Amino acid sequence: MQFEDQKIYEYIDAHQQEYIDRLGRLIAQKSLAGVHEGIEEMGALVVRELEQQGLKVTECPTPGNTCYIGDVKGESDKVLGFYDHYDVQPVEPLELWKSDPWKLDIRDGNLYGRGVSDNKGGIAASLAAIDAYQKVYGKLPCSVKMMLEGEEEIGSGNLPYFTEKYKDQLFCDGIIFEGGTRGSDGGPCVITLGNKGCLYIELKVKTASMDAHSSLAAIVENPAWRLVKALSSFKDDQDRVLIEGFYDGIQPLTEEDIEILKQDGFDIEGTKKYLGLDHYLNHMDGIELLEHYHYVPTANIAGFSSGWEGVGVKTVLPGEATAKMDFRLVPGQDPDHILELVKAHLHKHGFDDVQVTKLLGEPAYRSDSKSTFAAILKETAKQVTGQEPTMDYQAAGTCPLAYFCAEKNIPAAMAGTGTPNSNVHAPNEFYKVEDFVADIKFRATLMHKLGGNQ
Amino acid sequence: MQFEDQKIYEYIDAHQQEYIDRLGRLIAQKSLAGVHEGIEEMGALVVRELEQQGLKVTECPTPGNTCYIGDVKGESDKVLGFYDHYDVQPVEPLELWKSDPWKLDIRDGNLYGRGVSDNKGGIAASLAAIDAYQKVYGKLPCSVKMMLEGEEEIGSGNLPYFTEKYKDQLFCDGIIFEGGTRGSDGGPCVITLGNKGCLYIELKVKTASMDAHSSLAAIVENPAWRLVKALSSFKDDQDRVLIEGFYDGIQPLTEEDIEILKQDGFDIEGTKKYLGLDHYLNHMDGIELLEHYHYVPTANIAGFSSGWEGVGVKTVLPGEATAKMDFRLVPGQDPDHILELVKAHLHKHGFDDVQVTKLLGEPAYRSDSKSTFAAILKETAKQVTGQEPTMDYQAAGTCPLAYFCAEKNIPAAMAGTGTPNSNVHAPNEFYKVEDFVADIKFRATLMHKLGGNQ
Repeated sequence: MQFEDQKIYEYIDAHQQEYIDRLGRLIAQKSLAGVHEGIEEMGALVVRELEQQGLKVTECPTPGNTCYIGDVKGESDKVLGFYDHYDVQPVEPLELWKSDPWKLDIRDGNLYGRGVSDNKGGIAASLAAIDAYQKVYGKLPCSVKMMLEGEEEIGSGNLPYFTEKYKDQLFCDGIIFEGGTRGSDGGPCVITLGNKGCLYIELKVKTASMDAHSSLAAIVENPAWRLVKALSSFKDDQDRVLIEGFYDGIQPLTEEDIEILKQDGFDIEGTKKYLGLDHYLNHMDGIELLEHYHYVPTANIAGFSSGWEGVGVKTVLPGEATAKMDFRLVPGQDPDHILELVKAHLHKHGFDDVQVTKLLGEPAYRSDSKSTFAAILKETAKQVTGQEPTMDYQAAGTCPLAYFCAEKNIPAAMAGTGTPNSNVHAPNEFYKVEDFVADIKFRATLMHKLGGNQ
Repeated sequence: MQFEDQKIYEYIDAHQQEYIDRLGRLIAQKSLAGVHEGIEEMGALVVRELEQQGLKVTECPTPGNTCYIGDVKGESDKVLGFYDHYDVQPVEPLELWKSDPWKLDIRDGNLYGRGVSDNKGGIAASLAAIDAYQKVYGKLPCSVKMMLEGEEEIGSGNLPYFTEKYKDQLFCDGIIFEGGTRGSDGGPCVITLGNKGCLYIELKVKTASMDAHSSLAAIVENPAWRLVKALSSFKDDQDRVLIEGFYDGIQPLTEEDIEILKQDGFDIEGTKKYLGLDHYLNHMDGIELLEHYHYVPTANIAGFSSGWEGVGVKTVLPGEATAKMDFRLVPGQDPDHILELVKAHLHKHGFDDVQVTKLLGEPAYRSDSKSTFAAILKETAKQVTGQEPTMDYQAAGTCPLAYFCAEKNIPAAMAGTGTPNSNVHAPNEFYKVEDFVADIKFRATLMHKLGGNQ
């Protein structure tokens, strides 16, 4: 405990019901981006809650759902940013919920409701940290900027529009993306400083206007064969991508990266068991496996669909075949450039009949592990939890860090004391009360330290 | 007209309403093998109709729906066989029918109802031909054997059981399979003397017990990639099958085969237009295209299914991938042997993780084009329609000729005056009244000629 006294932590503990009640108000408002239900109402509620907490709110219309920036000034010139989203996943199958997903329920030390962990809890924790700090110290130690979008659960399609149009208002000295969790055993926090990007494409071959009798396969081109051949040309038998230039520009791992990998918290045996795997790809294990998971880009077939997909026999010649692919990219790989390489590869190999459509492109991003912000995050995690955090320099998944951070090289992280394995996107989503309260302390401590305090 | 007088044709014309009424009774009884609706009732009706016509019926239970053999003796020792099926396709979508599919409707010179063409019309035409011949001449010129199954529309799974168990009762001097149609322009009959066989398999790769987050694609094997690679190894870029031994045992075309191909009725331009094709496989045309259609075996991907097949983005690593393949085989290729070659190929190329399941295997069959039966068929077609028939020595599709004919080399054909493009398997299935009546004459004439008459 580095605060001059425990006053703020005690204040948070003493007022946790008040903060839980605010989270309850956020949960009670549906905000389903997929079916556009409650989006405007949720936006209005967010504006009310931020303004009640003294933030100045800028409404930022986009071609889709409105984004919001909430600003509050602090004593120093430092700015701490929080990126969160006010939309949530659907609740189906509803019958599997043990309590109403739209009504915060507290039982067995857990908060239940759609969005408690992903990620209305993050919004509530930031507001609570601001509240507690202001109540105890009168003024914030740094400025806080809350940046909220309403389409995260449907792909953040308008986020680049927002970050480009409002970029002059979005500078921060460090940004927390949604939050972070403890390790899978509920232990030390995992601080994630970067993530892979993602290019998502659809590949389609259409040869005939309809499926036909398969006797015609002797004389009519089969789009599934064409797509199989095209996809097959993308990779060698060791899963290495054969698209020319695909690996160009990727930086080799540093010794520090390898040291961090050695401490990585990925549960190799547990994941293998959970997924029912016989073995990992190419029988990888240990540090090689972890290196691939965090640092090697992928070319994944996310879906393939053609012809008869039901049970039993149907002798049909498909009229079209479609595949979905995602490429998880690492720093140095630009999604649009990779898209061009894919198209060039198809052309070079005679697959001009394969139509490629880009559905999503998000660049990778990696924060400087030597930044002040990274150091402060580690100190904060240790102070709040009493344990050294685990570092992850590059997550295997994708988060829109780059849109906010790439141009100005802003330090960013997914970090906090969120509950791991908390049924996000699933029925009975929960957040441990103690983790929620710790996360308020985490955010308050982070403000304190970024503001120049010890 | 080669009969000593037109008496039998006149009799058929005069009694056509009676024959249409019988077809109406067959249509009115549902017989859906897929949902097993009305199957026993249809069997009982078929027995009644055959017995009323003087046939001696043998009920032949199988592990599935019952087969029936109906025998009636004639003057000569020749036996004419008819293979037909008493089950029909489903009627959905019902709303597209202009009249009740289960009630024979006559309008604009057509008979409408489910099964009129496929293939209760064939059963009714055989019974009508027997009736007319007996009424006019007192006795049939040859024996007639009707062989009926009730699972044709769901794959004839128990037909090999039937033909093996009752093979001593199934010898004929020639067999008509279901019937045949006029050419696509309603012109001369097409007499088909053989057909490709079919091996239908499912290929499955399973790597994980569930779909997973696609970030794991860096370390977990993707079953879709495995299946794509395995399938890709089956063919070269010119669509030639690379499975070792696949083409072994296939006989080259004779000069006669090529002559027949030159007269083939396949509508190259019309089919291209109908299917909306830009071009045929490998830009084939003319005699090369016809040769492929009739004589070259296929390896067709009938379906491929894995991972996310919906609209838009889902970044998922599939847990399994499944493909369906049909191989249309030609004489010399045994389905079970080809299955072994497929398995050996996969093993040799390192794809032991691809599980292969056989769903169907029917051998090809080709009747002797120089047989007496073939000659009689040609004469019959010419006599009934006034036009030289078109010959097809080997159809591109599959029909279960081999089960009945292969062991004893029985001449067989799909032949008759059926209506082409008559919406079989679709709403508003029809049969032109004049074609139905002509088909009764066709069958009566065939009996006459096989019995040794001119």
